[in-house]
Amino acid sequence: MAIDEVLADLKQKIDEKLPKGTTISSVEFEGPQLVMYTENPWSFADNGNIVRNLAKTLRTRIVVRPDPKVLVPPEESVNKIVETVPVDSAIANYHFDPDVGEVIIEAEKPGLVIGKHGETLREITKKIGWTPKVVRAPPISSRTVKNIREFMKTNHKERKEILKTVGRKIHRECTSKDQWVRVTSLGGCKEVGRSCFLLSTPESCVMIDCGVNVGSEEHMTPYLYVPEVSPFSKLDAVVITHAHLDHQGLLPLLYRYGFEGPVYCTPPTRDLMALLQLDYIDVASKEGGRPPYSSADVREVLKHSIVLDYEEVTDIAPDIKLTFHNAGHILGSAISHFHIGDGLHNVVFTGDFKYEKTRLFDPAVNKFPRVESVVMESTYGGVNALQPSLQDAEGHMQQVIKNTLQNKGIVLIPAFAVGRSQEVMIVLEDAIRKGLIDNVPVYLDGMIWEATAIHATYPEYLNNDLRKLIFQKGENPFLSECFRPVDSNELRQEIISKREPCVILATSGMMNAGPVMEYFKAFAEDERNTLVFVGYQADGTLGRRIQKGWKEIPLKTGKGTEMIHMNMNVEIIDGFSGHSDRRQLMEYIRKMKPRPERVFTEHGDERSCIDLATSIHKKNKMETRALTNLETIRLV
Amino acid sequence: MAIDEVLADLKQKIDEKLPKGTTISSVEFEGPQLVMYTENPWSFADNGNIVRNLAKTLRTRIVVRPDPKVLVPPEESVNKIVETVPVDSAIANYHFDPDVGEVIIEAEKPGLVIGKHGETLREITKKIGWTPKVVRAPPISSRTVKNIREFMKTNHKERKEILKTVGRKIHRECTSKDQWVRVTSLGGCKEVGRSCFLLSTPESCVMIDCGVNVGSEEHMTPYLYVPEVSPFSKLDAVVITHAHLDHQGLLPLLYRYGFEGPVYCTPPTRDLMALLQLDYIDVASKEGGRPPYSSADVREVLKHSIVLDYEEVTDIAPDIKLTFHNAGHILGSAISHFHIGDGLHNVVFTGDFKYEKTRLFDPAVNKFPRVESVVMESTYGGVNALQPSLQDAEGHMQQVIKNTLQNKGIVLIPAFAVGRSQEVMIVLEDAIRKGLIDNVPVYLDGMIWEATAIHATYPEYLNNDLRKLIFQKGENPFLSECFRPVDSNELRQEIISKREPCVILATSGMMNAGPVMEYFKAFAEDERNTLVFVGYQADGTLGRRIQKGWKEIPLKTGKGTEMIHMNMNVEIIDGFSGHSDRRQLMEYIRKMKPRPERVFTEHGDERSCIDLATSIHKKNKMETRALTNLETIRLV
Ligand SMILES: [Zn+2]
Ligand SMILES: [Zn+2]
Ligand SMILES: [Zn+2]
Ligand SMILES: [Zn+2]
Ligand SMILES: [Zn+2]
Repeated sequence: MAIDEVLADLKQKIDEKLPKGTTISSVEFEGPQLVMYTENPWSFADNGNIVRNLAKTLRTRIVVRPDPKVLVPPEESVNKIVETVPVDSAIANYHFDPDVGEVIIEAEKPGLVIGKHGETLREITKKIGWTPKVVRAPPISSRTVKNIREFMKTNHKERKEILKTVGRKIHRECTSKDQWVRVTSLGGCKEVGRSCFLLSTPESCVMIDCGVNVGSEEHMTPYLYVPEVSPFSKLDAVVITHAHLDHQGLLPLLYRYGFEGPVYCTPPTRDLMALLQLDYIDVASKEGGRPPYSSADVREVLKHSIVLDYEEVTDIAPDIKLTFHNAGHILGSAISHFHIGDGLHNVVFTGDFKYEKTRLFDPAVNKFPRVESVVMESTYGGVNALQPSLQDAEGHMQQVIKNTLQNKGIVLIPAFAVGRSQEVMIVLEDAIRKGLIDNVPVYLDGMIWEATAIHATYPEYLNNDLRKLIFQKGENPFLSECFRPVDSNELRQEIISKREPCVILATSGMMNAGPVMEYFKAFAEDERNTLVFVGYQADGTLGRRIQKGWKEIPLKTGKGTEMIHMNMNVEIIDGFSGHSDRRQLMEYIRKMKPRPERVFTEHGDERSCIDLATSIHKKNKMETRALTNLETIRLV
Repeated sequence: MAIDEVLADLKQKIDEKLPKGTTISSVEFEGPQLVMYTENPWSFADNGNIVRNLAKTLRTRIVVRPDPKVLVPPEESVNKIVETVPVDSAIANYHFDPDVGEVIIEAEKPGLVIGKHGETLREITKKIGWTPKVVRAPPISSRTVKNIREFMKTNHKERKEILKTVGRKIHRECTSKDQWVRVTSLGGCKEVGRSCFLLSTPESCVMIDCGVNVGSEEHMTPYLYVPEVSPFSKLDAVVITHAHLDHQGLLPLLYRYGFEGPVYCTPPTRDLMALLQLDYIDVASKEGGRPPYSSADVREVLKHSIVLDYEEVTDIAPDIKLTFHNAGHILGSAISHFHIGDGLHNVVFTGDFKYEKTRLFDPAVNKFPRVESVVMESTYGGVNALQPSLQDAEGHMQQVIKNTLQNKGIVLIPAFAVGRSQEVMIVLEDAIRKGLIDNVPVYLDGMIWEATAIHATYPEYLNNDLRKLIFQKGENPFLSECFRPVDSNELRQEIISKREPCVILATSGMMNAGPVMEYFKAFAEDERNTLVFVGYQADGTLGRRIQKGWKEIPLKTGKGTEMIHMNMNVEIIDGFSGHSDRRQLMEYIRKMKPRPERVFTEHGDERSCIDLATSIHKKNKMETRALTNLETIRLV
């Protein structure tokens, strides 16, 4: 059946099912959704069940848009909205998008605009015709989020075309008689970095992650030149599990070399991705290298991005449905569940995950409607890779900071911008608030503050406790006044010259670049200070050398090589990892519902991947295997 | 380095190494060979070491051709040849090919034309300039061989261009920094039929076999639509292990859909392939089906074929060397050894093989300079798949035939044209000559006689004993007068109506078509007759049904469906298989030199492939695995 016939057919089915008085003028695919245009949007707004039931019957995601005819002009609409919502909603901004018939209302208290069970929203719809969407006016302003929202507005026409094309491709007819499901490993197997998989069937072909190994020249990029993925134009979609560079750093490259399809990720992943991609380009240029893509390619990623919240079942190809679930690793990180064919097979790609509740996130999800195969990370899969509990790690950190501050010393913590920094911030805020450590300033240098602002934009992606704290108690720990973003070189120099007791979180996390180096040079020779490692230090990095006990450290400066005499204390605090430790990895599979048939390990050094595969096989009597790059395995 | 520079460089190196008085005017690649043109061919002819040493130094196959300037005109040349060779050489034909400066001399006694250590040949070269090549005037004339030789002559110009293109492609520069070797299974794994593998490196991509499963509609063709092999134009080469349709039946399809590269096989495989492909088209048309390719595509295969004898190490891609070794399965069947990179990896594809000396062939070779991985057939890999010895099988057959003839019955043996028929023929000839069975006519119907003629054309591919018998004792068992080809329908009807005691070998081997059906209809109801099965009968074939004991057999005739009452005796004689039995498969690996690291099983039903992999793992402590279609494994 040609796609236009499919649409006509759908419209007829919908017409038959609509209650009296509700009508639709047309239907169209837009990305994974089916869009219905109506001249009586209020009747849909009044009865949420209409759309819910239609979606169930047609087994697809449905959205209703007002027919342009019924839209009240913007100025008049603003007045009507103000009339309708409570005064203390604190609306900061309106944006009318006639293409989709939406008005985006940015408010400090979105709940008031929405009303009980969406009552207020429905009232607004009745009065103005437009569909109101409420977004939170972020408590900390993120440059990234702002830029992305503006970029999306500016490019909405092109985006609409892209979504239409994607939508029609997703709903094309299946033609093959064969039935098979294959997974090809293009990177990240028996190694960490450059994660990249291909999931393919006779009908479709989806890439999962497209990472870069920033630490290796030889093994920097996934094997993107093999025939399975070339040309990129044949890919139906790319799915990104989370924003870390080892999972998405080369995504813009795909668009640079001919990919024109959609990329699926959660909303926070989209924003963090853009931030980290632009930083990657920036760092590469500064180090005199040639970044493999430009900011124009990053913008292409945004244009083609389709964001999905956790638990939204979504068609991404004629025979593939994708559902994201919380992974507990970083903001927006997603366990990716693929349902293939009509019940043919279910495979879960865990991406990176933490199977334990942390300060920021709930534990990774391991309950699914169905699952036969699992492809899982193995960072701490080695038989001895146990980590201290988070509680122990926190206690350890409090003790170290307390001692240093008592000695009038400075605490320097190298940290990645995304993930561990925010976890450590919450721990510090808690300890300061409770008086467990002195109330000193906590400086945040590098991209940490910007990344934190993105966290603050998406509180619904944080765990239950934190969400309650923010929404119900109105206490947002990220807004604590102990945090001081270092937003200028002057401030940085002032901190350095004052040398007053404080805590500094600065990037990069492995001390191979970034502002952390400035602080290190200034504070390394004073034995009252402490350098605190909270993350893994890879071989070859300065962080690793210091952990090994180097005392004389040559550092390049503007004037040549300077020798740093390492006198400050060094503390390694394990347990803050965003990855599951050995025990959690095993438990994740043991407690998975339903029980999977096969488990494939990846994302870990060779030993860890093999150890984990062996142990899961022995404990759970499941078929397991440590994947190798460039292999293709057959799931069905 | 561009290819012209490579050639210039080679010419200079050759010039430096040539002895005084020998010169070359130019060099060019032609298929896997380097061709040197010289104005003094006699000096090369005089000293075979020149070329041998050059080939060693340059590590490539070298051929010398006379510069056209020095060629004596054909008529004059014929006179000079006649002057030079002994009278009883019995020269049957001459063909001068000015393109390659060769004269092909067809003689009944090629040895006499060649002379001791090639003395006579060298003398001819000196007198006429042309390079003489001696081919045997075949003792039984094969239509196939004759047609192919003529076709090659007619198309020599186009072929020369093809070979030049292939040659330059083989010797292109390697550019990748990555090192890996992958094998993708496209068919023939955990099944028999449609064997097809892909061997790929960052530089090149070679297909091994391209079979058709004639017994299955659903699983007829290998997975040729997957991205690893599309478009076919990217394949560097196809290697065919042997002529059975399950290994080469879809080769012409590749040429039909864009493949333009070479196909490597042994000379008998090329000829048998053409015979079987044309027959496949013929059968498919007769059954009212649409054959997937035409005779024009078969001709393309011939044009692009490059034949290699056993033990010739040959460059087939910039980083792949191929060597064929005897496989003992059918005429020209080859164990295919691939040497990849500069010592990077060695993988052996066994194709079908028999690890036991048979009437026709020596046992399969399992000694190699190096071997790390083996991909092996598993037809009889099941734990209980032991076969009687060949000696027992022969005894059984003699007994069955003797008894039937004594009862004045007729012996009907359904047989495949290629392989078992010739084995059975030798057994029958031996038994008749020794008086063990009556001297009755042995009728050969279907393609058996033509296939036998091809066997007779290539005695150097038969085993030592048979070669000695033919060359030294002058006794060619295929020429025995007991054999009577059935070359007309009249003769067939005569045999049927006379009903005199005799032995009939007729195709097809599983009784689903072919002349065997005529005889069966005529002889099935007479209890004096015997139907003798010497080969495997697949599920769903008439042969299998008869083995199961069916007594009333409905057969389609011109006039509708006729019911055959099955009264003739049925005998199943195991042990004539061209495949190694379970014990031989195990021994083949156990005695392989050097000891391989990994063994992959294929070409057998699922149980057989898994059983064999498990047993080899346990016995030899090797890594083993039963391959699955559509998987890609990594060897390096
Ligand atoms: Zn991560
Ligand atoms: Zn990762
Ligand atoms: Zn065979
Ligand atoms: Zn076979
Ligand atoms: Zn084992």
